[in-house]
Amino acid sequence: MLESLIHKIEPVSTDVAARVQAALDNKTKPRGSLGRLEALACRYCAARASDAGLAPVKAVVVMAADHGVAAEGVSAFPQEVTAQMVANFAGGGAAINTLAQQVGAELLVVDMGVAHALPLPPEAGVRDCRVGAGTASMVHGPAMSEVQALAAIERGAAIAAELADGGTTVVGLGEMGIGNTTSASALTAVFTGVAVSDVTGRGTGIDDAALVNKIASIEAALKINAPDASKPLATLAALGGFEIAGLVGLVLGCAARRVAVVVDGFITVAAALTAVRLAPEAAGYLIGSHQSVEPGYVHAARALALEPLFDLQMRLGEGSGTPLAMAMLDSALAILRDMATFESAQVSDSGK
Amino acid sequence: MLESLIHKIEPVSTDVAARVQAALDNKTKPRGSLGRLEALACRYCAARASDAGLAPVKAVVVMAADHGVAAEGVSAFPQEVTAQMVANFAGGGAAINTLAQQVGAELLVVDMGVAHALPLPPEAGVRDCRVGAGTASMVHGPAMSEVQALAAIERGAAIAAELADGGTTVVGLGEMGIGNTTSASALTAVFTGVAVSDVTGRGTGIDDAALVNKIASIEAALKINAPDASKPLATLAALGGFEIAGLVGLVLGCAARRVAVVVDGFITVAAALTAVRLAPEAAGYLIGSHQSVEPGYVHAARALALEPLFDLQMRLGEGSGTPLAMAMLDSALAILRDMATFESAQVSDSGK
Repeated sequence: MLESLIHKIEPVSTDVAARVQAALDNKTKPRGSLGRLEALACRYCAARASDAGLAPVKAVVVMAADHGVAAEGVSAFPQEVTAQMVANFAGGGAAINTLAQQVGAELLVVDMGVAHALPLPPEAGVRDCRVGAGTASMVHGPAMSEVQALAAIERGAAIAAELADGGTTVVGLGEMGIGNTTSASALTAVFTGVAVSDVTGRGTGIDDAALVNKIASIEAALKINAPDASKPLATLAALGGFEIAGLVGLVLGCAARRVAVVVDGFITVAAALTAVRLAPEAAGYLIGSHQSVEPGYVHAARALALEPLFDLQMRLGEGSGTPLAMAMLDSALAILRDMATFESAQVSDSGK
Repeated sequence: MLESLIHKIEPVSTDVAARVQAALDNKTKPRGSLGRLEALACRYCAARASDAGLAPVKAVVVMAADHGVAAEGVSAFPQEVTAQMVANFAGGGAAINTLAQQVGAELLVVDMGVAHALPLPPEAGVRDCRVGAGTASMVHGPAMSEVQALAAIERGAAIAAELADGGTTVVGLGEMGIGNTTSASALTAVFTGVAVSDVTGRGTGIDDAALVNKIASIEAALKINAPDASKPLATLAALGGFEIAGLVGLVLGCAARRVAVVVDGFITVAAALTAVRLAPEAAGYLIGSHQSVEPGYVHAARALALEPLFDLQMRLGEGSGTPLAMAMLDSALAILRDMATFESAQVSDSGK
């Protein structure tokens, strides 16, 4: 399954990107004067392999799961909060509900393996893609088996295919899982080679002592699992979470269908980095949104050559940065579609 | 008139800002985890003196005028482009038309003193607030008289009052005027005390020789006019433009009516700085949008304690950064209005 999925991912279209830039250069503005908004239009169109610049059809997928490593005291919140927040997503009360609605993005909430029973009836609309009732603690061995990692990837890719079939053209990556910055830091340390202490932060707000413990937990996990960066699937199984593995599948599935992917903060950039280690061509389909305050974000983003569009000092997750980036994408594509050219508007070009 | 206008400006409400932050702290997210999006909600509500967080009613005002200093060869574009671009705004073909429409902002185009005849019929919808047919060159004396500066301020303030009467709650500052980065650099140098060479850039894209000439022109203007930073009106008259003076009036008029003001790039931040030198309480009504690539921007913004929300390497003007910031404001206020609290969603708080 994984080989076949990776095989379907084609490079983004550099020809389309060049055509879009040429079209933007002929709009009534000094060349390049819309800066990264122009680059954003080029990047999206290259992913779509179309220079039509049609308004994007947006979805945000929030994948939730629990982490055995939460038992090591790495989070400021109790593990029950994962299930409570999934219920909050289903009820429409979380930040991502509000933010996705603001930009007209469909929101899909996926249970990849929450530990506690959801305080929800089945009709609440949470997609059941459970791989298990939370991972094992990576401090004592692999968080999951490779079979489980593959199952999560497959389910994520199936969601991408379903969204692509329904006309979605851009997907925002969202996540919820108490303890999952610990997993993201471990994966980032392995895939970037940066020291654990440099890629580990305070997550939802732990104190100094808990941060020391979090770093020690990750170092213990790296010691016992001895992950090999050249084996991304095994590394994901050892250090990942079910929602992170699901997001890896979602990224790969989107890239295979030429759906652009908007990365949120640290957990999603770690998932995107894992996906790109499996399938390097997937990198071109990624669009940055915000720069997370988690220190690991910049290292993972640099490894992906991914530049975030803004830095609002956010550290929430849930995909909360992605709708804000989608609003910028809407504007970038509207520029491409709707602005006059120098010729049509009879404005003098400087020739530069 | 000016004294009376300044007298009407009340301080923003720190009480409201504190209430809004308390409300945000009780939403189902780690405290402060939405970072500057939370600060944006607080700042807007403090300006409005209301914690209701109602969806903002938006307008972008683009003020256009010509600059005598354009004759010194400080721009890559000929002066005719000012009138051509005003016609482009009226025809809906410019970047700001597209960007304002994306966020549902009304667009008001104002002729503060374009030199060339507009290739437009009167019914094209451009507001006539002309103070003259372009300023004189500041290299040879004051760009305008203080009487003209006051007239432009008065017209800008009248537009603010009209928008406030019509229900507008946030105004984006936009401008068009070949040569106006030269004027903005001169004003910024005087009001910040930073060297001319450090606040002067390439505008729409001049080459090295033209940049040297631009700096020399500004230095000549400062020598002949000998502006005194403690006399902001006289400084504005000596070095400003009709559109910049109009924007000063627009900022003061908005602050006097508790309408929030979104600053765009370098010209508008220089206008805002001038307004705040006239009326310090106006500073609290300002919201940053993008960080301009013009080197003077950061100096003027720092003098205003204004932090831009994003840096997209834009250098277009027209108010083009303001709709992107308004989209973020929409999201920040939706968070305040719509998100569940820990209690209502039955989510455990970390107590932090």
